[in-house]
Amino acid sequence: MTIRVAVTGAAGRMGSTVCQAVQEADGLELVARLDAGDTISTETLGGADVAVDFTVPTVTEANVHALIDAGVDVVVGTTGWNEESYGRVREHLARPEAAGRSVLIAPNFALSAVLSMRFAALAAPYFESVEVIELHHPNKVDAPSGTAVATAQGIAAARAAAGVAPSPDATESDPLGARGGVVDGVHVHAVRLRGLTAHEEVVLGNPGEQLTLRTDSFDRSSFMPGVVLAVREIGSREGLTIGLGPLINL
Amino acid sequence: MTIRVAVTGAAGRMGSTVCQAVQEADGLELVARLDAGDTISTETLGGADVAVDFTVPTVTEANVHALIDAGVDVVVGTTGWNEESYGRVREHLARPEAAGRSVLIAPNFALSAVLSMRFAALAAPYFESVEVIELHHPNKVDAPSGTAVATAQGIAAARAAAGVAPSPDATESDPLGARGGVVDGVHVHAVRLRGLTAHEEVVLGNPGEQLTLRTDSFDRSSFMPGVVLAVREIGSREGLTIGLGPLINL
Amino acid sequence: MTIRVAVTGAAGRMGSTVCQAVQEADGLELVARLDAGDTISTETLGGADVAVDFTVPTVTEANVHALIDAGVDVVVGTTGWNEESYGRVREHLARPEAAGRSVLIAPNFALSAVLSMRFAALAAPYFESVEVIELHHPNKVDAPSGTAVATAQGIAAARAAAGVAPSPDATESDPLGARGGVVDGVHVHAVRLRGLTAHEEVVLGNPGEQLTLRTDSFDRSSFMPGVVLAVREIGSREGLTIGLGPLINL
Amino acid sequence: MTIRVAVTGAAGRMGSTVCQAVQEADGLELVARLDAGDTISTETLGGADVAVDFTVPTVTEANVHALIDAGVDVVVGTTGWNEESYGRVREHLARPEAAGRSVLIAPNFALSAVLSMRFAALAAPYFESVEVIELHHPNKVDAPSGTAVATAQGIAAARAAAGVAPSPDATESDPLGARGGVVDGVHVHAVRLRGLTAHEEVVLGNPGEQLTLRTDSFDRSSFMPGVVLAVREIGSREGLTIGLGPLINL
Repeated sequence: MTIRVAVTGAAGRMGSTVCQAVQEADGLELVARLDAGDTISTETLGGADVAVDFTVPTVTEANVHALIDAGVDVVVGTTGWNEESYGRVREHLARPEAAGRSVLIAPNFALSAVLSMRFAALAAPYFESVEVIELHHPNKVDAPSGTAVATAQGIAAARAAAGVAPSPDATESDPLGARGGVVDGVHVHAVRLRGLTAHEEVVLGNPGEQLTLRTDSFDRSSFMPGVVLAVREIGSREGLTIGLGPLINL
Repeated sequence: MTIRVAVTGAAGRMGSTVCQAVQEADGLELVARLDAGDTISTETLGGADVAVDFTVPTVTEANVHALIDAGVDVVVGTTGWNEESYGRVREHLARPEAAGRSVLIAPNFALSAVLSMRFAALAAPYFESVEVIELHHPNKVDAPSGTAVATAQGIAAARAAAGVAPSPDATESDPLGARGGVVDGVHVHAVRLRGLTAHEEVVLGNPGEQLTLRTDSFDRSSFMPGVVLAVREIGSREGLTIGLGPLINL
Repeated sequence: MTIRVAVTGAAGRMGSTVCQAVQEADGLELVARLDAGDTISTETLGGADVAVDFTVPTVTEANVHALIDAGVDVVVGTTGWNEESYGRVREHLARPEAAGRSVLIAPNFALSAVLSMRFAALAAPYFESVEVIELHHPNKVDAPSGTAVATAQGIAAARAAAGVAPSPDATESDPLGARGGVVDGVHVHAVRLRGLTAHEEVVLGNPGEQLTLRTDSFDRSSFMPGVVLAVREIGSREGLTIGLGPLINL
Repeated sequence: MTIRVAVTGAAGRMGSTVCQAVQEADGLELVARLDAGDTISTETLGGADVAVDFTVPTVTEANVHALIDAGVDVVVGTTGWNEESYGRVREHLARPEAAGRSVLIAPNFALSAVLSMRFAALAAPYFESVEVIELHHPNKVDAPSGTAVATAQGIAAARAAAGVAPSPDATESDPLGARGGVVDGVHVHAVRLRGLTAHEEVVLGNPGEQLTLRTDSFDRSSFMPGVVLAVREIGSREGLTIGLGPLINL
């Protein structure tokens, strides 16, 4: 059975790459390309089963609510979401008229990043020390990256659940702030370098041993297998799913 | 309840490190140190519940059978085991007089290595390409390492189970053999370098992205958390366990 | 003073990227684009001072000789050259009618790769062990890469000149060939992975320490600074230059 | 001709390792071991030509002046030196009674670290971006490491001399300080991880390419080749030398 797909933000760099990936994927059919200025409605969606939203933080939340109202499931790759806006989507999905609709919002669709985040949480309780280093192109305006924050939060939660002590750190003097930022007790470092795209390294240490999980996203194409996977799986899920992790069997 | 531990190969470098680790671990008591020339018997084991064997390939199998006969569970870190010798241990454990006895044989007790092997198998089906690079000190006499072979086998089995195609490779000309060895369809490379101890890198690639799992064992102390974990858990297992993986909740 | 540049192979992927880089570089002017089917002559070169050749192994040598005859200096990025074809270019440049002409042939114009090769040769005499690992996309038909061979040769020459012993290696058993290829006594390993472009790692080891030189080329744009540097400097050199190294002040 | 060597701080961990390295090196003879409580004099130095000082920051400066007065050349691995204390040594060496004496003070004797620092300075002008990441054991009390500061200063000086613009950085928001410390315009990050000893990574980036210089010191033995080199070369130098770099032919 073919899944019909609409793309909002279809004229953008990510959106147009998604359109191409949908057209090339077995069992998917691209039925609508919407962009700024287009109204979201049953008509403009062309009979889509699923919509993929890669737009901008200022419009993505309104898009999601309009897409639910138009009767499609939604896969969202746009950033800028937080607990409050997640909550409003959950409320909407709980209303009777939204019965059967589901939404997946993921900060990162690269399988390497998704797996690395999951592995970091699984491994973290077995090591004394853990830190996160993210490396991005120098045009990025915020630090640390949302993926690094999410990685550190997942690590911290797993260590707390296992009753593991904080990473040891005897630092008494750090006048320049070289030890970086701290997210839920986990040190996070942000590197900015021309030539890079999006990269992350989780380093874990015990006496005499180290485990390193590194993920490299070299270009936008790295998101496409994850987007296609989400489009295929969204129909069998309920409510709001955050992150691609729950769709991967680990 | 204290677990009483005997060590065979106690005078060797690994064995003496194990003795020290047992003495320092909460809830473990070192009750016997045996080495070459010592007979394995109920008397010489000093009332041990568990024996840890770090000897040499030529004697480890005989040690394990003698230890089962002497009524103790066995944790084995000595290398040189294969399907045939595993089979003989399974047979022995199935006899009525060995009821309740269990044996764990692991090629590598470093938690980083055990986790990396497990993560490699979990991730392998999600990537087009995967290869293994192991790096060791230059005094090592065999290549590739047993851990690298086990890692490649685990990767190959996971990909076969998921129906994933072999890693793409357009190589037509490789007159020097630079593409390395192949284990169950997975390329394995062995580097030998002064200064190193035992290291392994699993590289996995998709269009536009890479995932790297790297493990470094800097010295023997890296094995001790895994040995202590095995001593604590062996009593609650049955029969033969291969590798530390099954003791870790992933 | 503006340098006028012609590009042969201008319709190819590398050639068209070169055309663009020349147009964007201060002090360079693109005066001719030639491709398969075009004759190389003073007329078609449009008054060029320098020609840049990114064509294919089967035509690059003939192109270089024709370009010398047409009175321009030549920068060559096409692969497939060897000692014999270098010799024929040297002979041609030594003839009176080629007085003042110079040719630069480089297997790799990425500055990171050129610097890494130079650093590897400088560092190699100070370490007991050294090996080379190259990693490329899986569509590459030959292994190891030309850059890896050149790197290993430079390392071997530097160690020989310093009277350094071969890297230690106790390997007795390597039934699968996991130790890789050997170039002038230096082990070279070739990894092929979807998602990668062109990467190389030189690892050097002493007791207790390691030095790693890693270079990553993520895309064709990495060659352009080196091509522009070569176009600017070729006029002040004589005869045949191999590699970009001599143009960098180390 | 044998070089006779005295060691101050001979009972310490570094000092005792130096004593052993001197005893094992061709052409060196260990003639005196001094430690806390011993007076430095011609008599206690046992006819030494060179003294090696691995003591503590509070006594190393007094030791160096006493050793110059006692008529020996000095190699110093103790940390805690600065421009003022360097100046006092230079003054002392300039006095007539110290004629012929020379002193070498180095923050790091690992050849990999010394070479990496030099390569970083050589490469830095050829790249748009450069940052430094140092990684150490979690018992270290200061951040960033002295070696990382020295590396960043060397990079900054080389870029300034070549007229290179600062590394690009569009960061507008970094509420946690994840971008790390800044030394002379170069970002420096400090990681602390159980299992590590002393490690440093210099990352350099251009459009489409990256160069990484990584150095790992796994244990104290990594300093010994550099200490032995310094002992052999100090006699042929004059005045004060800072760092091992000037003794290496690059």
